[in-house]
Amino acid sequence: MTVSKDAHIVTSYDENLRELDARIDRMGALAIAQTRDTISLVVHRDLAMAARILEREAEMNDLDFRVNEQVVRLLALRQPMADDLRAVVTCLKVAGMLERVGDYTANAARRAPALTQMTPFPVRGPVSRMGDLVIGMLDDALSAFRHPDVTLASQVRERDEEVDALHASLFRELLTYMMEDPRTITACTHLMFVSKNLERIGDQATNIAEAAHYRATGTMLVGERTKGDPSSGTEPAKDA
Amino acid sequence: MTVSKDAHIVTSYDENLRELDARIDRMGALAIAQTRDTISLVVHRDLAMAARILEREAEMNDLDFRVNEQVVRLLALRQPMADDLRAVVTCLKVAGMLERVGDYTANAARRAPALTQMTPFPVRGPVSRMGDLVIGMLDDALSAFRHPDVTLASQVRERDEEVDALHASLFRELLTYMMEDPRTITACTHLMFVSKNLERIGDQATNIAEAAHYRATGTMLVGERTKGDPSSGTEPAKDA
Repeated sequence: MTVSKDAHIVTSYDENLRELDARIDRMGALAIAQTRDTISLVVHRDLAMAARILEREAEMNDLDFRVNEQVVRLLALRQPMADDLRAVVTCLKVAGMLERVGDYTANAARRAPALTQMTPFPVRGPVSRMGDLVIGMLDDALSAFRHPDVTLASQVRERDEEVDALHASLFRELLTYMMEDPRTITACTHLMFVSKNLERIGDQATNIAEAAHYRATGTMLVGERTKGDPSSGTEPAKDA
Repeated sequence: MTVSKDAHIVTSYDENLRELDARIDRMGALAIAQTRDTISLVVHRDLAMAARILEREAEMNDLDFRVNEQVVRLLALRQPMADDLRAVVTCLKVAGMLERVGDYTANAARRAPALTQMTPFPVRGPVSRMGDLVIGMLDDALSAFRHPDVTLASQVRERDEEVDALHASLFRELLTYMMEDPRTITACTHLMFVSKNLERIGDQATNIAEAAHYRATGTMLVGERTKGDPSSGTEPAKDA
């Protein structure tokens, strides 16, 4: 009877953790769909996307809250140790990171109406490219977190530099458009913020990859990564 | 002997929690100092501040990491329940929020050199006002978290709307400057991002206030708050 009771507890703990992972999976799938739709909205002017993006942001906020509740309950009832404890705590962190991806896509979506004024739309290529990159990073980071896979996690982290460089280059290009044709100023500033939102989604993918590494090993990825945004330091010298 | 052992465990758990709160206090003090120095840097062109802000950002990242480690250790060794568990988990969340305040100040600080080109500097007043507001919100949110104080927490949340409105108004004003004088475009776009960083610091203060409420009551603050940034939706209609 003791055995059967223990077996029951073990199953139930694993079930709890699986449920938690399933919720992270759901949030991850939403984050990727949100980012993809944001690119469609911005690049292909598909304004019908905007409402859907804002609705799903609310769903992501709700899922983040549920993960929080579930983690506190799981810690209280199961008191997991070592690897299990680390898995639970990193799930809490990753849910917060995915919720932020939802925020960034919603912020970008709200700017879409301001972009319709801009014809022709000049930076379709770089925006699509940034979108593809960050979607690939999110996908791999989530996969690295799920298995976990430390090699894949390191690769995601390295790709963030490419996103930062694309953002810096897009920022400079948009400054040039604004100076050449002041009528594009409003649309271009909104595009700068869209680009910044995509760059921040890349940062979150990197954070998730670092959480994957921590979940797997209990240690942090070593080496300072260049955080954020070369555009914040480089343009003035080049464009002033 | 059992009594003395229990007493020892209790003291030690309280010590652990005090240590955790002390680290949050230290991060909070740093976040406020960072925000104050960022305003000095932007408004009074005190470029010497920039290096200090970037140094302290590294210290905040380090503190956030230490809080994470400490929380995992505390959960493993002490297995706190109910109120204590909630206190520990919210400390983890709040450390992450304060670390983001550090990110936003560093991002703003990196833009400072681009602002020196701009003479005269037109939006000193509104930037200072936003700075004072978000510093006050941070201060009160941290105090609400520390005691905890649910009334103060609700008040912080209400003040976020004022920050959002100031950001939207500054955004419109900067668009006007750019259109009137294209030579100001580079500096004005950087100022828009500085304003956005301050607006995001207000969001973090609000998140901390919500964590204070949750720590005190175990429930979330009810009522959807307007999250983020009216500038992302309102300008196009007004400025197009």
